[in-house]
Amino acid sequence: MNPTAAELDLFLLEHLDDYIAETSELCAQPSVSATGEGVLACAGLVEIMFERRQFAVNKIPTDGNPIIVARLGGASPRTLLFYNHYDVQPPEPLELWTTPPFQPTVRDGALYARGAIDDKGELIARLAAVDAVRALHGGPLPCGITFVVEGEEEIGSPHIAQFVRDHKELLACHGAIWEQGYVDAGGRPINTLGVRGILAVQLTVRTMSLDAHSGGAHMLPSAAWRLVRVLDSLKGPDERIRIPGFYDSALPPSALDEQLFEAMPDPEAELRAEYGVREFVGGLRGKDLERAVFSPTCNIQGITTGYQGGGMKTVIPHEATVKIDFRLVPEQDPDDIFAKLRAHLDAQGFADVELTRLGAMWPVRVSADDPLVKLCIRTGEEVYGKPALVEPLVGGSSPVYAFAKPLGGIPVIRPGVGHYAGRTHAPDEHMLIENFANAARHIARIVEEFGSL
Amino acid sequence: MNPTAAELDLFLLEHLDDYIAETSELCAQPSVSATGEGVLACAGLVEIMFERRQFAVNKIPTDGNPIIVARLGGASPRTLLFYNHYDVQPPEPLELWTTPPFQPTVRDGALYARGAIDDKGELIARLAAVDAVRALHGGPLPCGITFVVEGEEEIGSPHIAQFVRDHKELLACHGAIWEQGYVDAGGRPINTLGVRGILAVQLTVRTMSLDAHSGGAHMLPSAAWRLVRVLDSLKGPDERIRIPGFYDSALPPSALDEQLFEAMPDPEAELRAEYGVREFVGGLRGKDLERAVFSPTCNIQGITTGYQGGGMKTVIPHEATVKIDFRLVPEQDPDDIFAKLRAHLDAQGFADVELTRLGAMWPVRVSADDPLVKLCIRTGEEVYGKPALVEPLVGGSSPVYAFAKPLGGIPVIRPGVGHYAGRTHAPDEHMLIENFANAARHIARIVEEFGSL
Repeated sequence: MNPTAAELDLFLLEHLDDYIAETSELCAQPSVSATGEGVLACAGLVEIMFERRQFAVNKIPTDGNPIIVARLGGASPRTLLFYNHYDVQPPEPLELWTTPPFQPTVRDGALYARGAIDDKGELIARLAAVDAVRALHGGPLPCGITFVVEGEEEIGSPHIAQFVRDHKELLACHGAIWEQGYVDAGGRPINTLGVRGILAVQLTVRTMSLDAHSGGAHMLPSAAWRLVRVLDSLKGPDERIRIPGFYDSALPPSALDEQLFEAMPDPEAELRAEYGVREFVGGLRGKDLERAVFSPTCNIQGITTGYQGGGMKTVIPHEATVKIDFRLVPEQDPDDIFAKLRAHLDAQGFADVELTRLGAMWPVRVSADDPLVKLCIRTGEEVYGKPALVEPLVGGSSPVYAFAKPLGGIPVIRPGVGHYAGRTHAPDEHMLIENFANAARHIARIVEEFGSL
Repeated sequence: MNPTAAELDLFLLEHLDDYIAETSELCAQPSVSATGEGVLACAGLVEIMFERRQFAVNKIPTDGNPIIVARLGGASPRTLLFYNHYDVQPPEPLELWTTPPFQPTVRDGALYARGAIDDKGELIARLAAVDAVRALHGGPLPCGITFVVEGEEEIGSPHIAQFVRDHKELLACHGAIWEQGYVDAGGRPINTLGVRGILAVQLTVRTMSLDAHSGGAHMLPSAAWRLVRVLDSLKGPDERIRIPGFYDSALPPSALDEQLFEAMPDPEAELRAEYGVREFVGGLRGKDLERAVFSPTCNIQGITTGYQGGGMKTVIPHEATVKIDFRLVPEQDPDDIFAKLRAHLDAQGFADVELTRLGAMWPVRVSADDPLVKLCIRTGEEVYGKPALVEPLVGGSSPVYAFAKPLGGIPVIRPGVGHYAGRTHAPDEHMLIENFANAARHIARIVEEFGSL
């Protein structure tokens, strides 16, 4: 006999402390893909966590970090795929953490650590859900389960697309659950129908072969000032991106999208409190803050030029570097934007600016009518006891594009452990333990029903 | 009987190795005023160097680093004052040094070290000159000598002006020899009639209380982009500084200045080779490169915002900082420019931008007809065997303003050990040993004659 939802919930409640301990164990292992710190050790730890559960585990090398594929067969021929990643963002600036980023600490009902939400807590919540269904069935799972856990999500997943194309049989499935799902400030589960794409680049300006004394600034060319001109050419004070053709393929929100935005709560007060914002981009207010996700962006990740220390140093910098990410909306194409950016720089007299591609992902959307989307909404409302939210497009990006189309146009959903105030990618990243428990309950229900959808 | 110039030269030649060793000893002691590294130890070493020579030494505390005043009486009531500094610029970036900045190394006829030219080699060359005159006189020097050696020149000499006002009797003199003199690429001694002023500031922009995920860049305000707008408001692509009233007190070059510029050699080829420049500021060419020193500047010393590491990090920076120095021409006033900068920021909607003053110095000029200027030109032509150059205004700044007026409008000259390719303030700073010897010979002649001017 199949377990009831209440039985699944009881199992998860009884073992909650163990799973938070397992999450802490994983978060204590650094795995910063941007620098390489701890990445391989973390892959090994994830492998062990699957082996403890008798998954069939493949740790598959790539030109970057290894990808772990872990599978369990089921009673139904249908297979549900989970995508997660074991790498994390760099923890800097360290001095802004209340407790060290790789010393997981529980306080006030939350687990604080780099990776707590993104994406280690989420991975363990899913393992907990599978454990629960499996324990209560006593036999095989009601559906097959495949985990794909990669180690380069935070640097743009440069190898995942080729990996999926090379392993279509191993990854064959009928639907997927993506990473980084959220619950809003009111505790409502969020269902996202799409993600933006991304193109990340580095621009380097060199005007001299070495720094010069600033007494020569009337004649010796500054890389810092030239970079300011380059940046000014990319985006105006009106927030409009100035690269010719940049918006050509960008789809506006549909009428249905507008309805879904209208049904969403006003995020302004929450964002203002969380980020200490005085004025939003372009003076946006209220629900327009969410709607603006259909505006592709040109974000400066960081600028480095000249003297970086205390006090002052009277030099003219000979080199200046900026890292930029463009968030792209359906149907923009990072390859196309990269070519247009290069053409723009050349046309603006910046042919000397060195342009390096750091990473790219494509935007993806799924239909609101898909059975898996509906299952996710229904079970989510049951677990959280609140009406689900349906978000037409989220601001972030993910390598979902690399799976959805190559694996046969599978539907992809995204329930998870996150919450808006969780400081993802920032100091004091933390996961609410209640969210962890609810995410596990939600996933357990989906695993229980997916085989017979 | 007074020594001949040939006797002075012989003394200096015979002891040259000892003086290069003494310069190395001083350069081996770090003294980075921007960070404080080694500053007090270096002050102590300078004190010892004066004491070895039986100067009357006062090491006088300030709110910053101590100032050393060292005096020797002379046969004439006239006193010549030397200004030097024992602090140096930060040595970073360290990886661009051929040999470590604080391990002085002689190669190819030059001494490589941070401070070799600016300003430790120069100080020792002057001590050598005084040693020579003194040794050959056998009795008192022909004029009184006062050295003022401060430890905060590289951070804008924040305490020197008050120090001079407080110690006018101790510092009473009839003329002064400033630091950082140069010989041009053709070996001609340069006489400078003036220096620019400087106003150094730090601007800090904060748009949020913490960094955010760049997926929110369509709504969450970026400090990096706001800083780009602030910088754009300060100076246009035409190089014109946009702060209202900025140029109000700026004097253009006079007709005499234009003649002096015309007599100077074209610096273009030398600058192009030294700094690897493709295009100079505003497309300047030839002698216009020097003339442009009468254009005050707005130089970016450095920008720090967002992610500074390898790879990428998808964040929106919540804070951005720029350090700027304005080089000011006669009769611009740093106090006035600071007030105009604040007013400009406020008027442009940047009232939230935090403005910190890092340092200021005033522009100063001296008459080309002054007897000390003429003595310097004549003896310089004798030592270097080439016609002197007379430069109406140099691009750098110095605290000469703090001495010239308070000490009674004394003339100030500036012969020294520097050369254009010496990489002052940059990696591989070095002093040509030939320049050191000639500077000592030049100073010895001036000391010999100054008492009877």
